[in-house]
Amino acid sequence: MGGYIIIELTFLGTASAIHTKNRNHSSIVVKISDKTVLLDCGESTQKQLMYANISPMKIDIIFITHLHGDHILGLPGLLQSIAFRGRTEPLHIYGPRGIDDLIYHIRQLGYSLIGNNIITHTISEDGIVYEDDHFMVEAKQMKHTVIDYAYKIEEKRKPKFIKSKALKLGIPEGPLFGNLQRGESIELNGKIINASQVLGPPRKGIKMVFSGDTIPQESMIEFSKDADLLIHEATFANESKDKADEYGHSVAEDAALIAKEANVEQLVLTHLSNRYTNSDELTQEAKKYFENVVYADDFMTVIIENKKPVKIINANEKQTKQQEK
Amino acid sequence: MGGYIIIELTFLGTASAIHTKNRNHSSIVVKISDKTVLLDCGESTQKQLMYANISPMKIDIIFITHLHGDHILGLPGLLQSIAFRGRTEPLHIYGPRGIDDLIYHIRQLGYSLIGNNIITHTISEDGIVYEDDHFMVEAKQMKHTVIDYAYKIEEKRKPKFIKSKALKLGIPEGPLFGNLQRGESIELNGKIINASQVLGPPRKGIKMVFSGDTIPQESMIEFSKDADLLIHEATFANESKDKADEYGHSVAEDAALIAKEANVEQLVLTHLSNRYTNSDELTQEAKKYFENVVYADDFMTVIIENKKPVKIINANEKQTKQQEK
Repeated sequence: MGGYIIIELTFLGTASAIHTKNRNHSSIVVKISDKTVLLDCGESTQKQLMYANISPMKIDIIFITHLHGDHILGLPGLLQSIAFRGRTEPLHIYGPRGIDDLIYHIRQLGYSLIGNNIITHTISEDGIVYEDDHFMVEAKQMKHTVIDYAYKIEEKRKPKFIKSKALKLGIPEGPLFGNLQRGESIELNGKIINASQVLGPPRKGIKMVFSGDTIPQESMIEFSKDADLLIHEATFANESKDKADEYGHSVAEDAALIAKEANVEQLVLTHLSNRYTNSDELTQEAKKYFENVVYADDFMTVIIENKKPVKIINANEKQTKQQEK
Repeated sequence: MGGYIIIELTFLGTASAIHTKNRNHSSIVVKISDKTVLLDCGESTQKQLMYANISPMKIDIIFITHLHGDHILGLPGLLQSIAFRGRTEPLHIYGPRGIDDLIYHIRQLGYSLIGNNIITHTISEDGIVYEDDHFMVEAKQMKHTVIDYAYKIEEKRKPKFIKSKALKLGIPEGPLFGNLQRGESIELNGKIINASQVLGPPRKGIKMVFSGDTIPQESMIEFSKDADLLIHEATFANESKDKADEYGHSVAEDAALIAKEANVEQLVLTHLSNRYTNSDELTQEAKKYFENVVYADDFMTVIIENKKPVKIINANEKQTKQQEK
């Protein structure tokens, strides 16, 4: 049965405020249906996109969690590059209060070339902020040192079309089936037939949540309930719980407990403090509470597909595959 | 004889407007006497510094050639990073008209942390813009699509102290020698002795010039006369001379002819258009007129030392050396 969509996302940056040789500042690129979406855009995101073989010209929408430098300073370069290459298609940028000012000031940096195709959307309350035929994006305010939104990307899966019901109602096979499948009402022999008469119950679509930077939030459990994938920040290990509190961050254990309560399928941690040379300690702490967890590396890819387990492809595996070709 | 200084510079970015996987946007880091200087600061410069094992905390002065994005968009990240790490020492930034506005708008990008230790200096005419005991920097306006300055960094070499002359004047060996060596006058037995009486003729210091982006300029010949090193942009090969003119750039041959007329020791080309997969064609075109030329790669290092030939260490050699350790 058609209509499924796949989410394929790649981590472009998994560092916190201070990047390292292996971890760039925050950004995740998400391909979903016919759209390419960025979640945050730290410095060098356009370069990371190049290494991930994704053209910046393809980005349709950018969701910014919050306006700290390590999540936004890739925007000036990205916006200038696409303008320089002649892009005129609209690029939509969503973010909290201040996103408009940010783009205004980016336009003033030197001899900037940015066109009028950059459209900002200021999020001022929780709720659905984007919606098309295939998916929707919901924002929920978290708790950081500045306003920060988590984002949920969710497939809008159409209910199943039950052919036997349609035939029983006397609807002939043909274009009318298509109208009903799309949820439209039809008229047949002077009678109105609603789509609901031939469609099955609502079906769960695939769903992923990205926390942005935040102190662990009770509300995240409901927000990420039954999600296929929760990407949650885990800047510190347990021993630095006090630092996490002070700077508005989570420890790995926090994220694991939320993932468990929310019954998500896969937890991916990100936003590693540069005090850690690797993420093993954090992953182990999370595993005590939630088995299905990995710490993201730059260029790690996650694929979410209906009725299949969430698939993780780390950067090394990709290189190996390319070498095998 | 002491007093010599060494210039050691590393190319952090050698691309033109569109970066590639191997070439970052423009920046050169220059170590000279006790100072670390940046020439331009394209996006990802702080990451390139990390790969070059140079801390952004060490940068004392930044000279910006012009305010196009590919030469400045590393500033927001660099300035925020050093502020985040608690740097309070002044950082001086020199550039053409607009440099002040640039830093103003960089401060407005999101929740910016930049301190009041960033000091801008607007260059409005040709001449010496920086000077300390060891070296000076001279700016000269070039010709690009926007205001662009070339910079010359020149050692201030002290004249030789001639001991025999000092002894003949009856000056006792000791601290007075130091005063005279430093160019100060002294009083001895009621008589004033000027340093010039015991110092030799002025001595040529080491000297390097960086063109920034420019159409070839006649005035560059005088500006870079007898320099140890001329770093000149060469964005295009000969076949695109029309494009070079249109966009305010030089071809490799232009740079070579200037280097020849100026009698420089070493020419290094940079700012390669992304239309070229490698720089061989441009280097060959330059070699027809000037033998001592290389095209810069990211992380190539150049060392200039008095009475020694200019030394080029390419990135591969450095890696090999590190592996040997």
